[in-house]
Amino acid sequence: MKPLALTMGDPAGIGGELTLRAWLRLRETGPVFVALDDPARLERLARDMGLAVPVRPVADAWAAAQVFRSALPVLPVPLAAIPVPGQPDQANARAVVASIEQATKLALSGQVGGVVTNPINKAALYQVGFAYPGHTEFLAALTGATGQQIMMLASPMLRVVPVTVHASLRDSIAMLTTEMIVAASRTTATALRRDFGIASPRLAVAGLNPHAGEQGALGTEETTLVQPAIDTLRAEGIDVSGPWPPDTMFTAAARARYDVAICMYHDQALIPLKTLDMDHGVNVTLGLPIVRTSPDHGTAFDIAGKGVADPTSLIAAIELAATLARGAG
Amino acid sequence: MKPLALTMGDPAGIGGELTLRAWLRLRETGPVFVALDDPARLERLARDMGLAVPVRPVADAWAAAQVFRSALPVLPVPLAAIPVPGQPDQANARAVVASIEQATKLALSGQVGGVVTNPINKAALYQVGFAYPGHTEFLAALTGATGQQIMMLASPMLRVVPVTVHASLRDSIAMLTTEMIVAASRTTATALRRDFGIASPRLAVAGLNPHAGEQGALGTEETTLVQPAIDTLRAEGIDVSGPWPPDTMFTAAARARYDVAICMYHDQALIPLKTLDMDHGVNVTLGLPIVRTSPDHGTAFDIAGKGVADPTSLIAAIELAATLARGAG
Repeated sequence: MKPLALTMGDPAGIGGELTLRAWLRLRETGPVFVALDDPARLERLARDMGLAVPVRPVADAWAAAQVFRSALPVLPVPLAAIPVPGQPDQANARAVVASIEQATKLALSGQVGGVVTNPINKAALYQVGFAYPGHTEFLAALTGATGQQIMMLASPMLRVVPVTVHASLRDSIAMLTTEMIVAASRTTATALRRDFGIASPRLAVAGLNPHAGEQGALGTEETTLVQPAIDTLRAEGIDVSGPWPPDTMFTAAARARYDVAICMYHDQALIPLKTLDMDHGVNVTLGLPIVRTSPDHGTAFDIAGKGVADPTSLIAAIELAATLARGAG
Repeated sequence: MKPLALTMGDPAGIGGELTLRAWLRLRETGPVFVALDDPARLERLARDMGLAVPVRPVADAWAAAQVFRSALPVLPVPLAAIPVPGQPDQANARAVVASIEQATKLALSGQVGGVVTNPINKAALYQVGFAYPGHTEFLAALTGATGQQIMMLASPMLRVVPVTVHASLRDSIAMLTTEMIVAASRTTATALRRDFGIASPRLAVAGLNPHAGEQGALGTEETTLVQPAIDTLRAEGIDVSGPWPPDTMFTAAARARYDVAICMYHDQALIPLKTLDMDHGVNVTLGLPIVRTSPDHGTAFDIAGKGVADPTSLIAAIELAATLARGAG
């Protein structure tokens, strides 16, 4: 099994301490990973936090796999300035970007099984000319991905795909189209078959409105937007159901009847996911030619360096990436 | 302890069988209740469903309390036609309305501790001149309630109050005002103190947008509508927090920090409530001069008479009404 590449993320955030804690938790069992990071800063961080993590610079992914049980392997990406927890520093922005670039290159060339990204701070990167709305768009450009990338949130209890994501609720409704629902569902169905090992994935499509519109009394988008998408997907042979009333489709009984919920807006997807399982949610990017997962939280500058950051989501992201790399999630 | 009044609901729906099953479950422990229903139809239903429920017509609430352990007490409300499960009959609409009227009268005069309503079918009632959008508005008129009535959904894990309810998501956003948030929160705080026995209720107000708008990047309603409401409520001495990011405010850790979540739209409230606990959700009407609860489901014509309807929510509604009638929910 190839190791996974774990990026640095913003070195003023909680990424470094999560990387150290993830190694402590996974060193004996795996999955094996290699950090694309600054070895000196990780050593300092381990010492400051009282974590017994030997840091070992390595030359390639093969060497990383050999040392993983005895030390945290690091492919060096040197920082320009010593990071201060909670205070993002523009001087380190190029290294943050380089870590992502090198991890992606390793994945494209097949030296690692996939990429797990620690959280970045986009504001700091914009100042050095980073021109992407986020990680996902950057990875799409680096990998030459064609088509649409889709964010899936996965926990042991639920998988959700929000069709609209980072927009106000008002704008999310305004921008929603049948084509977006179809495209997101297609990408999701393909990924579930190919990477998650689900031969006939069952997609449950949410309505937009309370009670899925109640035959038009509480909104018409189910009729004008969602049902046509379902009809198109069915004609393509995809196993899709809906439009479901949003409030009853996330109960345990309802969840047993589908493999993924296609949701119309951010909170329709994220409220049930986080309510059911706050800690184990993992962000999976579908529609890239490489495996990519990330923890379901940000840089958390407010708690960086305090030793309280919880590595559960990063560990779940590493474990899911390994499963996807084997092609049976 | 006074009995509760339990209305008939639509006699073609699941109300009757739920009433029979609730009595079987509660006969020894209470809470004691009296059905406002047609004794002959309940006897027939018990026989058809093979439920050993002796039905006893009684003259008043006092007599009901005396017989409750040995029989289901019924204050007779005669039906005009024999109901057929799943087929609402206009001929019985006046009896459905009379059951609600008589239950309310008993509550107003203090003969019962509160009213629990079985689900009605509004379409059937409109045909005989029923002029209210639903149960709640009818009860407000019958009790001469002033001010605003508010729907709270309560389960053992979570209480939620949706500020906008039965409208499309688009219209819910358009109609939302600071005044509505303030009014709903005030009514909620008063009810939690008076009926639920919470001396200093803690209200958590949700944002409308993903990440509560992320400082305006994902919507402005948090700044223009929600925060002003919070400021007003705080100035009145109400313990209120927010606007919270909707996706993280329903985790177990977050729920421990408030007594009720004030939600901006139907599914923001109902998704977490039903995802956490589909069966024990109870609808509580706040802002009436009487206690009123109802199960969190409809007439379920599709399964009426089949013996599969689950009485859990009706039983939870009866239990919560009894607790509220004692003034300490």
